[in-house]
Amino acid sequence: MCHRYRLVISCPDQLGIVAGVSSFITGHGGSITEASQHSDLETGRFFMRYEIRADSLGMTADSMRDAFLPIAQEFDMHWALTDTRQRRRMVLMVSRESHCLVDLLYRWTAGELDCDIAAVISNHDDLRSLVEWHAIPFHHVPVEAQDKAPAFAEIEGLVEAAQADCVVLARYMQILPPAICQRYAGRVINIHHSFLPSFAGAKPYHQAHERGVKLIGATCHYVTEELDAGPIIEQGVHRVSHCHTPSDLVRFGRDVEKAVLARGVRWHLEDRVLMHGNKTVVFA
Amino acid sequence: MCHRYRLVISCPDQLGIVAGVSSFITGHGGSITEASQHSDLETGRFFMRYEIRADSLGMTADSMRDAFLPIAQEFDMHWALTDTRQRRRMVLMVSRESHCLVDLLYRWTAGELDCDIAAVISNHDDLRSLVEWHAIPFHHVPVEAQDKAPAFAEIEGLVEAAQADCVVLARYMQILPPAICQRYAGRVINIHHSFLPSFAGAKPYHQAHERGVKLIGATCHYVTEELDAGPIIEQGVHRVSHCHTPSDLVRFGRDVEKAVLARGVRWHLEDRVLMHGNKTVVFA
Amino acid sequence: MCHRYRLVISCPDQLGIVAGVSSFITGHGGSITEASQHSDLETGRFFMRYEIRADSLGMTADSMRDAFLPIAQEFDMHWALTDTRQRRRMVLMVSRESHCLVDLLYRWTAGELDCDIAAVISNHDDLRSLVEWHAIPFHHVPVEAQDKAPAFAEIEGLVEAAQADCVVLARYMQILPPAICQRYAGRVINIHHSFLPSFAGAKPYHQAHERGVKLIGATCHYVTEELDAGPIIEQGVHRVSHCHTPSDLVRFGRDVEKAVLARGVRWHLEDRVLMHGNKTVVFA
Amino acid sequence: MCHRYRLVISCPDQLGIVAGVSSFITGHGGSITEASQHSDLETGRFFMRYEIRADSLGMTADSMRDAFLPIAQEFDMHWALTDTRQRRRMVLMVSRESHCLVDLLYRWTAGELDCDIAAVISNHDDLRSLVEWHAIPFHHVPVEAQDKAPAFAEIEGLVEAAQADCVVLARYMQILPPAICQRYAGRVINIHHSFLPSFAGAKPYHQAHERGVKLIGATCHYVTEELDAGPIIEQGVHRVSHCHTPSDLVRFGRDVEKAVLARGVRWHLEDRVLMHGNKTVVFA
Repeated sequence: MCHRYRLVISCPDQLGIVAGVSSFITGHGGSITEASQHSDLETGRFFMRYEIRADSLGMTADSMRDAFLPIAQEFDMHWALTDTRQRRRMVLMVSRESHCLVDLLYRWTAGELDCDIAAVISNHDDLRSLVEWHAIPFHHVPVEAQDKAPAFAEIEGLVEAAQADCVVLARYMQILPPAICQRYAGRVINIHHSFLPSFAGAKPYHQAHERGVKLIGATCHYVTEELDAGPIIEQGVHRVSHCHTPSDLVRFGRDVEKAVLARGVRWHLEDRVLMHGNKTVVFA
Repeated sequence: MCHRYRLVISCPDQLGIVAGVSSFITGHGGSITEASQHSDLETGRFFMRYEIRADSLGMTADSMRDAFLPIAQEFDMHWALTDTRQRRRMVLMVSRESHCLVDLLYRWTAGELDCDIAAVISNHDDLRSLVEWHAIPFHHVPVEAQDKAPAFAEIEGLVEAAQADCVVLARYMQILPPAICQRYAGRVINIHHSFLPSFAGAKPYHQAHERGVKLIGATCHYVTEELDAGPIIEQGVHRVSHCHTPSDLVRFGRDVEKAVLARGVRWHLEDRVLMHGNKTVVFA
Repeated sequence: MCHRYRLVISCPDQLGIVAGVSSFITGHGGSITEASQHSDLETGRFFMRYEIRADSLGMTADSMRDAFLPIAQEFDMHWALTDTRQRRRMVLMVSRESHCLVDLLYRWTAGELDCDIAAVISNHDDLRSLVEWHAIPFHHVPVEAQDKAPAFAEIEGLVEAAQADCVVLARYMQILPPAICQRYAGRVINIHHSFLPSFAGAKPYHQAHERGVKLIGATCHYVTEELDAGPIIEQGVHRVSHCHTPSDLVRFGRDVEKAVLARGVRWHLEDRVLMHGNKTVVFA
Repeated sequence: MCHRYRLVISCPDQLGIVAGVSSFITGHGGSITEASQHSDLETGRFFMRYEIRADSLGMTADSMRDAFLPIAQEFDMHWALTDTRQRRRMVLMVSRESHCLVDLLYRWTAGELDCDIAAVISNHDDLRSLVEWHAIPFHHVPVEAQDKAPAFAEIEGLVEAAQADCVVLARYMQILPPAICQRYAGRVINIHHSFLPSFAGAKPYHQAHERGVKLIGATCHYVTEELDAGPIIEQGVHRVSHCHTPSDLVRFGRDVEKAVLARGVRWHLEDRVLMHGNKTVVFA
């Protein structure tokens, strides 16, 4: 992929935003390769995302940011300009189940996820060999049921040391403490193994089997302090029937989980997901 | 479709059920055109459904029932033998929204639903002309918010007079009283406009929009006394995004609702749905 | 829906198109409610579609067109500005099968298709009553196998008299003559009952059954002189298995056909479909 | 999974097959855990598959085969009784693309594929490390464009030495010679990266892009001498739009390919796929 800048904006909707932004870019010779925008009529908020060829602009991301500042202020924007040459740093957290990890590592190897994987952290040591085969540091941080604080302190240190831009809970079966949720708000992505808001909490496939649903699902969302209640990024489902046991649901579920998580993570890394209260705008 | 008998059985699982039943049918020259079975390992219950060409048997459904009785008793079966020549009688209940009604009437006309539609009952008069164009009796039974009892007494009388085998709530926006739910247990089919158990109750599309889900759904289920909690027959979903308003969700939802309800009703009419506690076995 | 103008553009890609167009609209006070754009990197062609609140502009569509002309010329645009108050006029053509017709009529009644249905033309008289119940003129134009010219001359006259903006072949089982295809290029929409390019031509479900495919499909496309080869607007599929007969495929297919056709027709009516050689850009 | 026998039968349809088979099994105390059957009305052929708990029978698979022989002969059956304790031996063939291989190896590790992977053969050496990390022998057999015979002789030797029950072409980009196709008829599974019969042959995603389809697909099928024309086991699709380049299609396609191939391979290993002329019966 060629070198690009991504301009992502959220601001109160008003006349002239697109004209202002696009004239600014054109004025600097910028060639826009992808453009998305959305006006939310309920809240009166406007969202946009532009991809611009860096070589068409002939200036650094920093210069571009300086030049854009007056427009950003005029329209009271929340905004970011990212540079595809500055690769994101991602930390993966896993437990014992490997399906999401294997899938993300494959996609990363295949170039589908444009990031560095700085580290994998797990409360079990099972997946060390797989991770290390990919030449990624693996940290085993056991979590004691009686006192989880030391483990999470260590994890927070590791994430900080890794200079992580985002953390992906790829079936990490522990609940993050509020402090980490707040510190990394909008940057911790979880995959929940149910079609939320149905079956939040533990053992969702067993809950689904018990209720006799005909479709099971998975939900990729940003982590917030409230369990399984953060902004949803992506969801998927799989058909099941009376002849499937809970362990069949678990098996089908693995396929949905990894696909849904992979889409969510890719979109996040490409700055396609914008928070909007407890919801998301996804320019997929 | 040629003349058939359908034998539907549920009983405690044990050795020899299939051998016993299939030997009985073969012994009478019966040609089985479709066979389905399911052993539920958790509950130890066995379910089966056979379609048999009536002309291969050379006996009436009643004689067949008599002949089968000893086997049914031996295996402690809940069972029914239905005759495709004895068409089911269905009563539809609707409110103002016509999408499910239009769809069911089309399918009925096209021969997809093997039944007589004995009557359509509505708490509004809006859909009278559509129904009467199909030469089906239409009954307008307004329901007073302050005192619903007289309306439901009238409805119960109409259903009884129609000699209905089943009642389909095709977006009937009233809650049936417990007495009717009990009297017609396993024979009242509802379509709920959400992916249950998410968003039970009122205005599910608005709830879904509020939560920011990425898929909306619909659920066809048998009505029980507990609102939106009966055995699920079928479910479906439709993808939505941030750019869809609640009214877009309502529009997409109509398509899911009518498709899901139509499948549920067809399966019910073909004796493909077997109750199993608060779940269903569906031999689709 | 409130009164809107829709500006649809296709032109060679170059710097400044978005800036030019959006500045023009902003300069006239125009409030953009929906914006889509696409750069095709292979062909270097640019496509865009804007929805603008008419009341924000304070000028008629004609004045707007005049004002826009210099920009259109500067960028060598193929373009159109449509006014949602000027409802499209649609002619439906059907044969004996009613599923697509019933579906389109329902959606039209429900307000999902923003157009007038000027007439329904059929080579059979079967669906007259259904059409006339909707207070739409029905024309029975039998097509003689030996000499189809008179029928198509009559049809062309009816379409012209109806002042049709578009013609929808809702399972019309005749092949339109080249003259009509050319005259109404980009305005005749067909539903083909296979997942094109598989199974073009006659009896596609039987072809699909013969080949043993596990999914069947339907394809909505613009009609060109070459049979079943025009630009594809939309496609859908339905799962089938060994236990389904050709007539089951036909039944499942009806559901796919009507859903796919309805989406294609709606998008066409909303100016969301732009031709691009033998392909389409669909701003859905 | 507990120890089971699987009885798979195909024979001319006639009265008494189910009764005969089920009475035989019951007579030996056999507990049937799963039963599927299908009568093909067009060809008059009957198919069935039973899973039986081995411990309920108290005899070896060989004794069971001897005991069953008279029934098999009476009904002129093609049949097989397999023993889940005798694990199948599978050989995988790959080229440079790893997505199907990574997926199959994950599923194998997770216990989703009940087989031994005897070897991986490739015409490139790229995937050696991945395969050997899984402790599976890897054979690099380059194929010379001018003279492929020596390579395929070596491959045939390797497959034979591996005592392979089946061969899976997991994106192996070479065409197998007729001799191998015949020798392993019904035991070589391929994944083709298009929704067959559309886009057989080379570069299907580019063909699909060129045609402007709105869904792309993949097809898992048994290999026959005619390229991409063998019996279809499973298919899947993924939605695409005008904004996707051929390389996007390739990326989406990888997800469909691996999912479809994995289902096909699993069903094959579980004796759920029965050949029926150039079609399959899949008791999924």
